[in-house]
Amino acid sequence: MNEFELIHRFFSRPPADGTVRLGVGDDAAVVMPTPGHELLLAIDTMAEGRHFFADVPPATLGHKILAVNLSDMAAMGAVPRWALLSGTLPNSDPDWLAAFSEGLFALAKRYDVSLVGGDTVRGPCSFTLTIVGEAPAGEALTRAGAQPDDDLWVSGTLGDAALALAAIQNRITLNPATLAVLRTHLETPEPRVALGLKLRRLAHAALDISDGLMGDLGHILNASDVGAEIELPLLPCHPSLTALLNGAERPLALHCLLSGGDDYELCFTAPPAARDALIALSNELALPLTRIGAITATPGFTVFDEQHHPLPALPAAYDHFPNGTPP
Amino acid sequence: MNEFELIHRFFSRPPADGTVRLGVGDDAAVVMPTPGHELLLAIDTMAEGRHFFADVPPATLGHKILAVNLSDMAAMGAVPRWALLSGTLPNSDPDWLAAFSEGLFALAKRYDVSLVGGDTVRGPCSFTLTIVGEAPAGEALTRAGAQPDDDLWVSGTLGDAALALAAIQNRITLNPATLAVLRTHLETPEPRVALGLKLRRLAHAALDISDGLMGDLGHILNASDVGAEIELPLLPCHPSLTALLNGAERPLALHCLLSGGDDYELCFTAPPAARDALIALSNELALPLTRIGAITATPGFTVFDEQHHPLPALPAAYDHFPNGTPP
Repeated sequence: MNEFELIHRFFSRPPADGTVRLGVGDDAAVVMPTPGHELLLAIDTMAEGRHFFADVPPATLGHKILAVNLSDMAAMGAVPRWALLSGTLPNSDPDWLAAFSEGLFALAKRYDVSLVGGDTVRGPCSFTLTIVGEAPAGEALTRAGAQPDDDLWVSGTLGDAALALAAIQNRITLNPATLAVLRTHLETPEPRVALGLKLRRLAHAALDISDGLMGDLGHILNASDVGAEIELPLLPCHPSLTALLNGAERPLALHCLLSGGDDYELCFTAPPAARDALIALSNELALPLTRIGAITATPGFTVFDEQHHPLPALPAAYDHFPNGTPP
Repeated sequence: MNEFELIHRFFSRPPADGTVRLGVGDDAAVVMPTPGHELLLAIDTMAEGRHFFADVPPATLGHKILAVNLSDMAAMGAVPRWALLSGTLPNSDPDWLAAFSEGLFALAKRYDVSLVGGDTVRGPCSFTLTIVGEAPAGEALTRAGAQPDDDLWVSGTLGDAALALAAIQNRITLNPATLAVLRTHLETPEPRVALGLKLRRLAHAALDISDGLMGDLGHILNASDVGAEIELPLLPCHPSLTALLNGAERPLALHCLLSGGDDYELCFTAPPAARDALIALSNELALPLTRIGAITATPGFTVFDEQHHPLPALPAAYDHFPNGTPP
């Protein structure tokens, strides 16, 4: 199977809707944007050894490269529409590619996203996906706009993926049933697209937590020129993480919760007047929404522990180039 | 310099025009499409060892990753608008990145393209760029639409990049002045955007030649369900390539001309009635446009040599996965 046959066999599927005038197979795709809407554009790369292990099931990888990009659309309150995928592959194993594309298209179908273009290169395994979404002009959510006295909210639970990773790497022991549950959050995160769309009219600022709560919340605070106070006991997490938080593994538990990364939950700020609407929304979506603290006029970022003492500094977000030079 | 500082320092520049409401630095960029236009979407990856050498000047690499994507927009008759770049880098050497971004932004500025998003990952050097362009609804050029008796045209010269590569790899000897000229076609190709825009009303079908004339023309023939006859003596090329064609290195010269790749010229079909307009356009753009053959109703593809004998089969387009398995 050569490059063109490969693309045709695994990545050419009928578009999700009538917006695609020309999909995979020309120099560019041709799509029809919705009048009165702005375009949202994001790109994310996942590379073997950095973002996934060589033995990860390919279907979960296909899911995740799309999910992390859909999560960016969710954070902006956008409807995801069209995707382009570039895959660098060490070979073109048909079984592996079939499973990868199944995982990708299963998620794409649920969100009516059309894969309209791509490229393939031989090399060390990595995937780059570009997502294009839409939102009514002027309505997209951004990281700026958080206001003093806003409530600070997160969706779902935090730290599940980081805890699963710690167990997979034998830094901690979890019972197999717990690991199986947490592992789904690491390998097949669910983008919070429906939540993002509803937040357009409720939230002042939003982003998705990909590099850990502390680092990502820092982006909202910088962009909005405000500070935040967070109550550690309010942070929503799996019971096994709560148990670790109260024992010898507290440092690891704090790391997972505050800076572990790969959560793909939304963090957002909203005025106290929106509380009832957000609780109703949580019920409607069957998705926990938890108030974890508040925005302050004073810049800075404090996490208060169970005794309401400020936590000392914690490791920040994952940084691919922490020192600017190779390790 | 960490990941965020790196992005900010080298890749955050003011947008090229007022269409960018939000650029680099949020979960997604927000841009305003032109009413009544369709969107053109393309993605291309360049990886060290596959598309460039480790010692390539970084400014030329920054130019080329954008140029190859602009070339896709040119092929569709689209105005390029917004780009997203994902870079996988072994380190974050500031001098290298400064030169790379200079090369990228110098070309972006000439075409009013705004870099609105990106991602950085540590790993073996490669770049993936997504380009988003626009064309009036229904007017984009495609590979389909070529009609029997259409003339077949190409812009510029063919084989320059492949001949330069052959010299760099010591498969052939060129005088240094010639190599210097040809090398610019390999390292800093000029996308034919202005030509593509004018071809919207003149051409029936078009694409850019990235994998060699034979392979790429095959895409037009397949998409349009037609054939083609080409006259070898008509193919426009550098005089040094013509000289090789008439000597012992004829096989290499034929390879460069017909299937060498990296030309980034446009190949298009147009009715004979468009000849005068195309000659005038060639003068207007100061860009050679050469009629190299004709489209036939019978499928298939023949290249006639200097004695009007059909050439035997030649190597086809570059294929990243020729056998479906690693070499």
